[in-house]
Amino acid sequence: MSNPEKNLYKQLEKQSKGSQVALGDALDQLIFNEAGLIPAIAQQFDSGEVLMMAWMNRAAIEETLHSKRVCYWSRSRNDYWRKGESSGNQQTLVSMSTDCDGDTLLLKVDQLGAACHTGRRDCFYNHISAQGLQISCDPIQDPSKLYGKH
Amino acid sequence: MSNPEKNLYKQLEKQSKGSQVALGDALDQLIFNEAGLIPAIAQQFDSGEVLMMAWMNRAAIEETLHSKRVCYWSRSRNDYWRKGESSGNQQTLVSMSTDCDGDTLLLKVDQLGAACHTGRRDCFYNHISAQGLQISCDPIQDPSKLYGKH
Repeated sequence: MSNPEKNLYKQLEKQSKGSQVALGDALDQLIFNEAGLIPAIAQQFDSGEVLMMAWMNRAAIEETLHSKRVCYWSRSRNDYWRKGESSGNQQTLVSMSTDCDGDTLLLKVDQLGAACHTGRRDCFYNHISAQGLQISCDPIQDPSKLYGKH
Repeated sequence: MSNPEKNLYKQLEKQSKGSQVALGDALDQLIFNEAGLIPAIAQQFDSGEVLMMAWMNRAAIEETLHSKRVCYWSRSRNDYWRKGESSGNQQTLVSMSTDCDGDTLLLKVDQLGAACHTGRRDCFYNHISAQGLQISCDPIQDPSKLYGKH
């Protein structure tokens, strides 16, 4: 990481609402990990449900901003992952923001159908408490029918 | 990563609502990164605001589950970070869940005051679009008065 005092996001902490930065500069200063990736949280824009967390590289961010179709980087497939490309369950971008440190993205999206590959609406169905883990919901779509449709 | 087919979370994908696992087994099978950390998204339980993302190790998860006061691991200080310990802006845990892969946590919390060290309610105030970055809100608390109170 470069000198944090010189980092754009550090400088923006004290700026006021409405302050602006050119897109290229904002993306240049994001903090990507050693694999060139930044975590992206996807939240349903109207209901507020947190649907999933995945990873983006710079090109995936730029494609998403311009196409409004959310594109991640799949760490397991080592390739671009255009959400819904095989399942049909697309994520349309409503807005994107980054946090104070410039190391996490929040995507407000409009999710068609299930966001989770298990067919559940969201990925956070494993509820954990001091009493243990309990599955909190069932699929809304049959996962065996989700893939290969498109 | 161990054989994914043998991973507990992979096995849970096809289980139904209400299925249970002992806490120790659930935590043993979480996917921590090479630093022993897992990302944790904090969401205000009633409004749905995504407040911040930070990191936890296993001990921080266990402490949080038992105390109901959210405890992260600070990567910059290399120490436990009991949210609100110096600012007074505590996060009380309402519920915790992990995603389908067991590699991300979602914490529903009740956040007192500002979650962000800049004094803003949440950390995601840098709005990014194809037109560039724009700061979307101002602090709700003076950050110079947030620390050292407690």
